[in-house]
Amino acid sequence: MRKVAVIGTGHTDFGFNSPKTGLELFCEAATEAMQEAKIQPGDVQALFCGNALSDFSEGQIMIQSYIADSIGCHNIPASRFEAACASATVAIRDAAMWVASGFYDIVIVGGMEKATAMGTALATRTFAMGTDARYEFPTGFTFPGFFGLLTNLYITKYRVPFEKLREQMSLVSVQSHFYGMKNSHAQFKKEITVDQVKNSFMVASPLTLLDCCPFSDGAAALVIASEDKAKDLCDKPVYITGTGQASSGMLSSQYKDIPRLKARDISVKQAYDMAGVGPEDIDICELHDCFSIASIIAAESMGFAEFGKGGELWEKEEARIGGKIPINISGGLKSKGHPIGATGASQTVEIVKQLRGDLVDEGRQVEGARVGLVDTLGGDGIVCNLVLKSE
Amino acid sequence: MRKVAVIGTGHTDFGFNSPKTGLELFCEAATEAMQEAKIQPGDVQALFCGNALSDFSEGQIMIQSYIADSIGCHNIPASRFEAACASATVAIRDAAMWVASGFYDIVIVGGMEKATAMGTALATRTFAMGTDARYEFPTGFTFPGFFGLLTNLYITKYRVPFEKLREQMSLVSVQSHFYGMKNSHAQFKKEITVDQVKNSFMVASPLTLLDCCPFSDGAAALVIASEDKAKDLCDKPVYITGTGQASSGMLSSQYKDIPRLKARDISVKQAYDMAGVGPEDIDICELHDCFSIASIIAAESMGFAEFGKGGELWEKEEARIGGKIPINISGGLKSKGHPIGATGASQTVEIVKQLRGDLVDEGRQVEGARVGLVDTLGGDGIVCNLVLKSE
Repeated sequence: MRKVAVIGTGHTDFGFNSPKTGLELFCEAATEAMQEAKIQPGDVQALFCGNALSDFSEGQIMIQSYIADSIGCHNIPASRFEAACASATVAIRDAAMWVASGFYDIVIVGGMEKATAMGTALATRTFAMGTDARYEFPTGFTFPGFFGLLTNLYITKYRVPFEKLREQMSLVSVQSHFYGMKNSHAQFKKEITVDQVKNSFMVASPLTLLDCCPFSDGAAALVIASEDKAKDLCDKPVYITGTGQASSGMLSSQYKDIPRLKARDISVKQAYDMAGVGPEDIDICELHDCFSIASIIAAESMGFAEFGKGGELWEKEEARIGGKIPINISGGLKSKGHPIGATGASQTVEIVKQLRGDLVDEGRQVEGARVGLVDTLGGDGIVCNLVLKSE
Repeated sequence: MRKVAVIGTGHTDFGFNSPKTGLELFCEAATEAMQEAKIQPGDVQALFCGNALSDFSEGQIMIQSYIADSIGCHNIPASRFEAACASATVAIRDAAMWVASGFYDIVIVGGMEKATAMGTALATRTFAMGTDARYEFPTGFTFPGFFGLLTNLYITKYRVPFEKLREQMSLVSVQSHFYGMKNSHAQFKKEITVDQVKNSFMVASPLTLLDCCPFSDGAAALVIASEDKAKDLCDKPVYITGTGQASSGMLSSQYKDIPRLKARDISVKQAYDMAGVGPEDIDICELHDCFSIASIIAAESMGFAEFGKGGELWEKEEARIGGKIPINISGGLKSKGHPIGATGASQTVEIVKQLRGDLVDEGRQVEGARVGLVDTLGGDGIVCNLVLKSE
């Protein structure tokens, strides 16, 4: 199959209570991506859209066809993907296949969410539709609850003292806010301390408010093209060289490997194998830090640390610029924000910018980064990974 | 790219107030499809799921990963597509690409809806999220309203006397019920008359109740495989030889060609061109008859009749078995039922059965059918077409 390149990126500000509609947010990101790629709407052959909650938040399904029309790409095929938080990453993996296969040469893919207007409490309930609706949600199994339980399981399984893990988790959030300060699109641009994380109010024991990412509005988009088109149009194409996707079992309560997520083990291996790389080759990673503990378990499955020792990456400053594996230098979901359906596209935009060396001015460039990894977790069920490489 | 074959089909009963959950419905159809294909869950490499409203109806997003697990296909990639009524057809087109490209050899694709428990009035409002939520829905633009207006526009544009079109529309519904009587999975198994259609209560002028398809619960699924696998596993593979997909403009009120849908003109041409066929080659067609007028306008764009004369196909019995182009011999959405996210998969299952000659016992086999066409309209925005061929 053909090589597939990202030739343009777009990213809105992420934040609470955006005055823009979901349609407007996606169009802003897509238009920026088309401008960066120096293409016209008429060059775009298809649209792939990740979105989770536009029906609940704005009473709109089928938004993909309205987006296509609004950005001037009249009558093109437009498909919507829903995989909770992983919606956009799944859309990107799919879009890359359509280009790799030779069917399309230039497509737009992105994600969008406009979910904060309903307020955090209702958004938490609404988004809990991503857990099993028959047995688990009725027990109070929202996502903070799921990750709170998982933290306790982590302590038991790996015999990590609570105080040690508590410190490591705090350092995850502190680092995210440190880099989020430097990200012009981030939702939270303020530094926080370890003590503030520990002492913020309890959401789902032992997770405090500052262990949790926020709900956000926002969008991100990419123009994806075949290698030939990319070489014509773009000085610094970044290639999508590996992709992976896997699902977890049905009931979280029946996962055998928890707190390890088998779906991530499978997905990231697919992506590594397809790209011909291993964890030692990754220069920069954006991973799914919906909660501080989520960063730690994700880093382990991706091979950046032994199981039970993921937190040491943050404790020893190995996840910072200059460390062994810079992680979430965007500020991550925690500080940059987490517009559910947009997150995978935002992570991918960030990796592309890092691999192009675009982030020097923001003071958060990982020098010489050549290979990047995207990791997105959808609900408690779907993991999708992408490996990207600069030339 | 490789040839792609359907090697197994599954189809639940369609009906109102199914006692089964959406998950159970999809699993029933998928299990039947795997049995027919003589494959095991471990042979399936990915799942593609069309669904529109499981969040509103059952409080469940991400249902695709639960489906994969429940049918024994643990940890495989599972993607959900939402394109309103066209959700499953878009999923099939996408699944076919993954197999054609060589990435996967055997996948399951299908669609499901469990939407009737909310009642028809609320379902109508909920499903109206498939129209523009900002400007058009607030004016009362539910789908019966859209197609009612479109009927009036049809009369004006093509100068067809109302009484003549009224008779033709009635004959569309009468034919659907005639064949639905013979479909073991159909929701309505009763004959109706032209007078009953005309005199049933007015829903959205001039559309009466019997011009309108029902809301339904149900699922349908297919096993799709590469040509090599198909030849190993299957005596009568049916090939997906052409696919098309296109979007309409944003606001229905701004469509220039209405009542003709430009998206259908584009989509069906793509499918015909890719398959190397034209309308004269189609032996059997399942088209999107959400309302009786919808059948007439769809038949015209697919090239089965001149614009303004589509109704004559039903008037002259050309859309029946033995006629020029047998249409909706399943009973169509009108009589078979319309579980939104399942409809495209149901249409495709029907065409596959016709091309395999499986429907002799049900008394509705189109003898010698070799080439079939699927046509699905999602909301007022997306059209997706598939051309299928037997060997």
